[in-house]
Amino acid sequence: MQIGFIGTGVMGNAIAVNLLKAGHTLTVFNRTKSKTDNLVNLGATWADSPKLVAQKSDLVFTMVGMPTDVENVYFNDDGIFAGLTANKTVVDLTTSRPDLAKKIYSYAKSHAIFALDAPVSGGDIGAKNATLTIMVGGELSVFNQIEAIFKEIGQTVNYFGPAGSGQHTKMANQIMIAGTMTGLTEMLLYAKAANLDLNKVLATVGGGSAANWSLSNYGPRILKDDYTPGFFARHFLKDLRIALDEADKMNLTLPATTEAKRLYEVMVDECHLGDQGTQGLINSYK
Amino acid sequence: MQIGFIGTGVMGNAIAVNLLKAGHTLTVFNRTKSKTDNLVNLGATWADSPKLVAQKSDLVFTMVGMPTDVENVYFNDDGIFAGLTANKTVVDLTTSRPDLAKKIYSYAKSHAIFALDAPVSGGDIGAKNATLTIMVGGELSVFNQIEAIFKEIGQTVNYFGPAGSGQHTKMANQIMIAGTMTGLTEMLLYAKAANLDLNKVLATVGGGSAANWSLSNYGPRILKDDYTPGFFARHFLKDLRIALDEADKMNLTLPATTEAKRLYEVMVDECHLGDQGTQGLINSYK
Repeated sequence: MQIGFIGTGVMGNAIAVNLLKAGHTLTVFNRTKSKTDNLVNLGATWADSPKLVAQKSDLVFTMVGMPTDVENVYFNDDGIFAGLTANKTVVDLTTSRPDLAKKIYSYAKSHAIFALDAPVSGGDIGAKNATLTIMVGGELSVFNQIEAIFKEIGQTVNYFGPAGSGQHTKMANQIMIAGTMTGLTEMLLYAKAANLDLNKVLATVGGGSAANWSLSNYGPRILKDDYTPGFFARHFLKDLRIALDEADKMNLTLPATTEAKRLYEVMVDECHLGDQGTQGLINSYK
Repeated sequence: MQIGFIGTGVMGNAIAVNLLKAGHTLTVFNRTKSKTDNLVNLGATWADSPKLVAQKSDLVFTMVGMPTDVENVYFNDDGIFAGLTANKTVVDLTTSRPDLAKKIYSYAKSHAIFALDAPVSGGDIGAKNATLTIMVGGELSVFNQIEAIFKEIGQTVNYFGPAGSGQHTKMANQIMIAGTMTGLTEMLLYAKAANLDLNKVLATVGGGSAANWSLSNYGPRILKDDYTPGFFARHFLKDLRIALDEADKMNLTLPATTEAKRLYEVMVDECHLGDQGTQGLINSYK
């Protein structure tokens, strides 16, 4: 199958590599061209715009940064929809706004194009090892057609309902992580202030009813002052903003998540630490 | 060894059973006498006050409710210290204030009595199966003398430093859980509002970087509207209040934990749901 891939940052690049390894023919585009070099070396073809990628593809994946990037990549004059013909499929892997996923779906539907929203979790390691969790929204029949390809890039692939449902599930995921990250951060600050052996605290607390992935994975990195991004704090903040905007639209008040967003705003906007990983939150506490 | 056990609620009772099974001679006291009946049937001896328990014991365990209960049990006219002679040992298993642990230690030290603070985690099931995590503060030499007995009632037994360090470690544990519980609650509220299949969301979110013990254990109970306490919400609120008081003394501001405390105050104080388990937090959201 002719596959297009737009957005080859850390995550997108690793996913594209797995699609190439699975034997697909890839046409690629990225804002910074050099980030497609390794893919071209593996046999992918460069195209000069999302539109040109779309013209050469049966299925186009996108994995870009912010919702505005998603909107541009799909709807600009040189965007995907300017180049895509009927019966082709688009899949947005970006974590983005549920209402934008619905907008893409509606536009696609009216042009006989198939569209799925399919944000992922599992980070750069999951992307590299094809162990991502993929949360899919859109029409079930379209999901069924693409499922085999999802399985080439991810391990847990689940369908959640109509357009936007993949994004909503990812937002639920990020709301949960907001809790584990703020809890981990404040737990370590408390334990440090109390002069406890932090390695021992992590081992003990992480072995019981407080156990969680963030503690096991980010706890030891924080103790080594390792704030290199598994997941950029500024991207996580973007996700929390989307989640809380959506919650607001559903008349839902989420005070703990709102507080987590505020704390990540301090980290990213006031302390300018958005290029650290989410575990860098601890650096913005006074 | 002659062991005294004061406070035979759900947790204390199960621990006392394990001490009896291990072959120790037990003298027991509890505010509600009937809650020691099963222990007397297993061979324990009832005593009419903490003082009388202390007079008959080489080692006294306490597991009562609130810090004020701890204070009374140790310092009242009919309390432990009124009955205990030199070279005996006291171990407080209650989750209580670090500064109270230090006060007990200091008083004990000045009377040539040994004292440890040793709060536990692992819940009623951990108490029953002797798989508790025990976090110990006090003098290392005293810990070493008691360690074998701790191993009869718990699985993970760790020493954390001078008096109060066990309590501080438990507070760190509760701060972490404040994050997982608020995150889980708000994640489920969001997913429900977005019309997602909640069982599917739990399975997916719980399989990746948002994975945590609260989600795996309390998530399914919440979906079944099962709010029976594994751990009483009002006890958890007590713990968060202690943790934040201690943080305040250490000039530490913990905004996410403060917000979690506020949410549990709404649940316990305003909605009067303190006798539900911690997972009942979701019932106090509007």
